[in-house]
Amino acid sequence: MTVNLVPDFKFEIASSSKDLLSLAARYRKICFPRKARWAPNRQDRSTALTKLQLVVTSPDHVLSPHTDESYTLLLPAGGKGEGGRVAVLEASTQFGAMRGLETFSQLLHFDFDLSAYRVLHAPWQVKDKPRFPHRELLVDSARHFLPVRVLKDLLSSLSFAKINVLHWHLADTQSFPMQSRNNPELSRRGSFSSDETYSEDDVAEIVEWGRMRGVRVLPEIDMPGHAASWCRGYPKICPSPSCLEPLSPVMPTPLTPFASDDTFTVVERLMGDVVSSFPEPLLHLGGDEVNTSCWEASESIKGWMKQNNLTTGDAFKLFLLRAHAMAAKFHRRPVVWDEVWDVVGANLSKDVIIQQWRWGGNHVNRTKNVTSNGYQLIWMVDPDWYLDSLSTGWEKIHTTDLCEGLTEEECERVIGGGGGMWGETVDASDLEQTVWPRMAALAEVLWSPAPTGKRSRLKAFRCLLLQRGVRAAPVDNAVARTAPSGPGGCRDA
Amino acid sequence: MTVNLVPDFKFEIASSSKDLLSLAARYRKICFPRKARWAPNRQDRSTALTKLQLVVTSPDHVLSPHTDESYTLLLPAGGKGEGGRVAVLEASTQFGAMRGLETFSQLLHFDFDLSAYRVLHAPWQVKDKPRFPHRELLVDSARHFLPVRVLKDLLSSLSFAKINVLHWHLADTQSFPMQSRNNPELSRRGSFSSDETYSEDDVAEIVEWGRMRGVRVLPEIDMPGHAASWCRGYPKICPSPSCLEPLSPVMPTPLTPFASDDTFTVVERLMGDVVSSFPEPLLHLGGDEVNTSCWEASESIKGWMKQNNLTTGDAFKLFLLRAHAMAAKFHRRPVVWDEVWDVVGANLSKDVIIQQWRWGGNHVNRTKNVTSNGYQLIWMVDPDWYLDSLSTGWEKIHTTDLCEGLTEEECERVIGGGGGMWGETVDASDLEQTVWPRMAALAEVLWSPAPTGKRSRLKAFRCLLLQRGVRAAPVDNAVARTAPSGPGGCRDA
Repeated sequence: MTVNLVPDFKFEIASSSKDLLSLAARYRKICFPRKARWAPNRQDRSTALTKLQLVVTSPDHVLSPHTDESYTLLLPAGGKGEGGRVAVLEASTQFGAMRGLETFSQLLHFDFDLSAYRVLHAPWQVKDKPRFPHRELLVDSARHFLPVRVLKDLLSSLSFAKINVLHWHLADTQSFPMQSRNNPELSRRGSFSSDETYSEDDVAEIVEWGRMRGVRVLPEIDMPGHAASWCRGYPKICPSPSCLEPLSPVMPTPLTPFASDDTFTVVERLMGDVVSSFPEPLLHLGGDEVNTSCWEASESIKGWMKQNNLTTGDAFKLFLLRAHAMAAKFHRRPVVWDEVWDVVGANLSKDVIIQQWRWGGNHVNRTKNVTSNGYQLIWMVDPDWYLDSLSTGWEKIHTTDLCEGLTEEECERVIGGGGGMWGETVDASDLEQTVWPRMAALAEVLWSPAPTGKRSRLKAFRCLLLQRGVRAAPVDNAVARTAPSGPGGCRDA
Repeated sequence: MTVNLVPDFKFEIASSSKDLLSLAARYRKICFPRKARWAPNRQDRSTALTKLQLVVTSPDHVLSPHTDESYTLLLPAGGKGEGGRVAVLEASTQFGAMRGLETFSQLLHFDFDLSAYRVLHAPWQVKDKPRFPHRELLVDSARHFLPVRVLKDLLSSLSFAKINVLHWHLADTQSFPMQSRNNPELSRRGSFSSDETYSEDDVAEIVEWGRMRGVRVLPEIDMPGHAASWCRGYPKICPSPSCLEPLSPVMPTPLTPFASDDTFTVVERLMGDVVSSFPEPLLHLGGDEVNTSCWEASESIKGWMKQNNLTTGDAFKLFLLRAHAMAAKFHRRPVVWDEVWDVVGANLSKDVIIQQWRWGGNHVNRTKNVTSNGYQLIWMVDPDWYLDSLSTGWEKIHTTDLCEGLTEEECERVIGGGGGMWGETVDASDLEQTVWPRMAALAEVLWSPAPTGKRSRLKAFRCLLLQRGVRAAPVDNAVARTAPSGPGGCRDA
């Protein structure tokens, strides 16, 4: 049945947790964007829901990869007696409560005739938790700069789909936008322009904005490939002026102090700055698409390899292991692209998480190889989960089975996955409509896939996103982010 | 020279005007999105600017078509002595002050190395006012619904380009989204869905949001054509179930009370509702693209015309004049599309403003015809100023001469113009990047055209829009709203 909410419906919180109070204030605005005026003589207050009780065991929980996001939401059908008119949301953490409030907000319907909020098909008993703990969107602020305001809007939108990680691909060949206090030339010379730079304050603002929405911000420092922009500020860490990446692997023998222009001196200072800006316990170190031909074209690097009796592959492996060890020193757990698995294999610390991006077709073998060796894996297989693959539709995303061909034990090691929003043709002008609505299909796979009603559910969610100011493109597009083809309601497109 | 602002730079207001205080608070956030921390030992406080004095004669001015938006901004170059370190903004109204604050915000530059706001090329003495008093953007919430949040974001963005009118094309053939208290079936049956409806509160919120940004919201009730969506709620005002528009012109003779299902009864109730929601003294009554063949296909309408000895043209004319008279009764000044001039000509009240949308090529004759007859005109010639004409670039917009072929006196009657963002392929997902950056070229024509440096100025403005979270598409696009073609800085695209 349909049950009304009284116009002064309340969130009741028996806690003084700042996070929880702020969460409730935010969701009041999300749930009730309009004032409920109740058309005269049309509603019976005595049967309407009066409040939502938030019961949270640990409302000041520190957000982490292990955060409990489960919740239970009871929405009675109203009617006589207090028990029938009070909704209850229970969760272990404020982040579980957040997921429950999001669900609550999506069950509300504003009736324009009655000027009242209502819940259809009550009562509801929702016992919910995510299927995968790691549910990410990768954004790329190196191919195009993404302003702080735009990233904050994006983080807000991610929380609507219960995505809990923003994987921030901070730098790449084209630009290095983040200020590094101890390597000031990285952004000073590596950014597209001084305005296209993130200050430490900017990063802190983004991280906290994400935290308040249950989205951890996971930084990626991609190396030694995809790093040519570093050379603009620190040319000596690159093989040569004409052959910039991968970064030079030359490193002093242990116990010798680093020269100030060694790659690993810059990396260590950068890692220190990143660690002080990002509380996230995971640190993505990239490692993808490393073509070592610049090393082989450099006499000094070749000389160093020869002197140390290293093949190019050895040098690459050394580079990776050194970077991982450095991350460990900073108490960070490395995430790496799956090429690193190919190079280092089971010599990797079991702590290292493999993010698999390669390839449609042969991906099952790769997934099995990694997980059967006891490593955890994050799924982002190209092209299906690469959102810059514009012709990959949400249907394809929705049919993804992350555990295809895996045993139950191996599947346990797939901690989740995410959408890869690479930025070659994505800037602030088209980010949201390239991400949405496909990201919602992906989020559903990661949280709780349901086999039926996909299209209508996705369309309803798109309408919700539009109402909340998120620029989600039409669902029926054959190619992502294209305009609606003609006039119509939000569910028609 | 370059002058710094002290980190605790203040806006000084010798007034308790609520509007002015709210304006200053808003522009503090716009001007200073980052905390200025001042790098140690790098800056000299004794030479930096300390404050901006806002001197506003009438800070509680009521926004109207006659609002004085002029301002004077003096930004000294800093240095010893108090006079050299205080900026002054003078305006007659809070809306002039708003335009001046926008200019001030665009003169600021955040230096990431110093962590300080600076003004380049100081001192500045800006004495500024708009060339045209009426500078609008038309949006169409009938072909696609535009959520409240999206319209508010759009209004904010318009104020960045000093646009002062949002022309709101409220309803059309496809949908009627606005609730009319006295014609409840219009939106109940005419909207795409109940969620795609504007309540009275929504309209009030949008109008006030616009007012706070110096943007008047001018409602358009397009009739008798483009009105088929009205028939879903009030079928009897339409010629027949199979031939819906233009709305039936049948009207009772004077002194006979209207039947409840007469077109003009519905129109009068609607106009009353619109007038109570929109303080704007102009009321757009449409009148474009009226094809009277549905009238001629209706026996009852034909009978009525015959009985009253009216041609179809007479009936159309009568309809228009009656609507205009009704608007006058509600103390509203009609704006109409230029077909109305063709039909009624100099029989129109001199009070009526003609909005010209027809056509590239012959538009000069039309403009001259209207203005030489003493009527005021708003310019929106298709395709140059139709933003849904995606292949019309900003260069074309920028070369527009609204007074081409007019005498000085006639040119005085061109009160302004605007961009037409018709919504056939525009919804919340692509509105902003279709409007921007071309709307900025248009805004420049309307405020103060400058012949040189257009492209770099537009690119800089686009970068500013992106920083402020406005989804402005690349400037170098041949077709509007397309994605950036490859990686790069915001000025590269």
